[in-house]
Amino acid sequence: VTTRDMAGTPRWEQAAIVGVGLIGGSIGLALRRAGAARQIIGVGRSAANLQRAIACGAIDQLVLESAGELPEVDLVIVCTPVDHVAKHVAWWARSAAQGALVTDAGSTKARIVSEVDAQLQKENPRQARFIGSHPLAGSEKTGVEHSRENLFDGRVVVITPTEHTPPSAVEEVQTLWTSLGASVISMSPAAHDEAVAATSHLPHVIASALAAVTPPDLLRLVAGGWLDTTRVAAGDVSLWQQILLENRDPVLTALAKLENELHSWRRALEQRDVAAVEALLQQGKTIRDAVGN
Amino acid sequence: VTTRDMAGTPRWEQAAIVGVGLIGGSIGLALRRAGAARQIIGVGRSAANLQRAIACGAIDQLVLESAGELPEVDLVIVCTPVDHVAKHVAWWARSAAQGALVTDAGSTKARIVSEVDAQLQKENPRQARFIGSHPLAGSEKTGVEHSRENLFDGRVVVITPTEHTPPSAVEEVQTLWTSLGASVISMSPAAHDEAVAATSHLPHVIASALAAVTPPDLLRLVAGGWLDTTRVAAGDVSLWQQILLENRDPVLTALAKLENELHSWRRALEQRDVAAVEALLQQGKTIRDAVGN
Repeated sequence: VTTRDMAGTPRWEQAAIVGVGLIGGSIGLALRRAGAARQIIGVGRSAANLQRAIACGAIDQLVLESAGELPEVDLVIVCTPVDHVAKHVAWWARSAAQGALVTDAGSTKARIVSEVDAQLQKENPRQARFIGSHPLAGSEKTGVEHSRENLFDGRVVVITPTEHTPPSAVEEVQTLWTSLGASVISMSPAAHDEAVAATSHLPHVIASALAAVTPPDLLRLVAGGWLDTTRVAAGDVSLWQQILLENRDPVLTALAKLENELHSWRRALEQRDVAAVEALLQQGKTIRDAVGN
Repeated sequence: VTTRDMAGTPRWEQAAIVGVGLIGGSIGLALRRAGAARQIIGVGRSAANLQRAIACGAIDQLVLESAGELPEVDLVIVCTPVDHVAKHVAWWARSAAQGALVTDAGSTKARIVSEVDAQLQKENPRQARFIGSHPLAGSEKTGVEHSRENLFDGRVVVITPTEHTPPSAVEEVQTLWTSLGASVISMSPAAHDEAVAATSHLPHVIASALAAVTPPDLLRLVAGGWLDTTRVAAGDVSLWQQILLENRDPVLTALAKLENELHSWRRALEQRDVAAVEALLQQGKTIRDAVGN
């Protein structure tokens, strides 16, 4: 059951997933579910982790990073931590099949995309076609053992084409994410980074700060509100350190807006201003209600 | 199936629930499940709402507030918004059965309890025995139609005895909440208010502020993190305005701690201080991990 598309054959012959954790593993499982790739190759540093990925059914075959080159894959998806994405994309693009589609799953885009574009402008022996992606899916759980074939179902993937992106890559990456169950939105890398600073990175900072200031002896009193509001604070520390510093400027801008809002809260409470407190609560409720659960 | 306890008879003959919304309705359903009261009377301003409560099975009978007095109930639980709790407790205590247990479900305790204690010291014709309660359960959904008999299962109820509380009331209110599925923690009213400022009220302010600063055109990009972190912002505006202003001073203290924490975040990000960002994330993760999901 590895082959299926309109014509009954898989869209890609061989797909390489570089970095097989939660996201990479779920891409493997979802590619398999869609029958979109004839063979799925996992690339990484740790043979033990890649063996686990094979056991989970996320990949068919493994290539160690130290091998330094890939078989003739026509699709490369780099799912490493953001610090390493640009380097990996440029590296594996050199050894993929001629004209392969290369994308990534990094949570920030501006630096990654500009570095990759610059490197491929300089040297692109196989005419790899790169476009940045960011699937807005994930979990506070990490590791290939938490992979799910439905992780992207109903989720949004932002793709970030630039003036250097071949139009065929835009089309092909849309096919990719759509076949994995997601819907696709296209934005510039900079607009993406500002957007996720507000919708993902700032919530992480806030959740973390809120958990950190809760006196441990009061934890027996927490209920649904605290549990929901702090949930993402359980996320992987080094992953989030990288994301937040990588996207530092947009995160600082979003944080400044929040600090202003909290200043309005402080003033309204200090002045016992019923109307102001209600207005602040109503602003938050209106936006939250617009989304649903 | 309205009667059951160790001896096969209900603990209370008649229970009055004043204010039958989510909490009051759930208390009715849980009392019924436990067979802890022979009859459950709902008290309120709106006949239509009380009729809905009867239809839900949350109460057996209704008494309109305008009636001004109760049958000979031996248990009164006041579940009105915090602004009105003290007034209702003092009022209905005057017309309950001799020595009735009277409690409330208000989210703040210091002012309510001191007002009620003072009023009952002055005038307590039926020797009502009052003790404050706060069930740490709820939902961003309100209204009797969302009541559930299991709302208190596994939850914590804080009770707040004072020097004026008869020891028999402490024991009896523990029986009450335990029979509804909860476990009971006893604290002073002031300690309770400081605790919930940190564990419930501050998370509400934060969730609301975070939702409010999210540009509406980015809502199509929100995923699990934002949804969790902002969930409670959907709560009832006037209910939360009352809670936050009622507990203003402890909330401002908790808010100041969070503002300091965000200041540390700002500094760490501005200085691109990897170790500081990791330390901040780790503090939040350690506390969040101590609780579980």
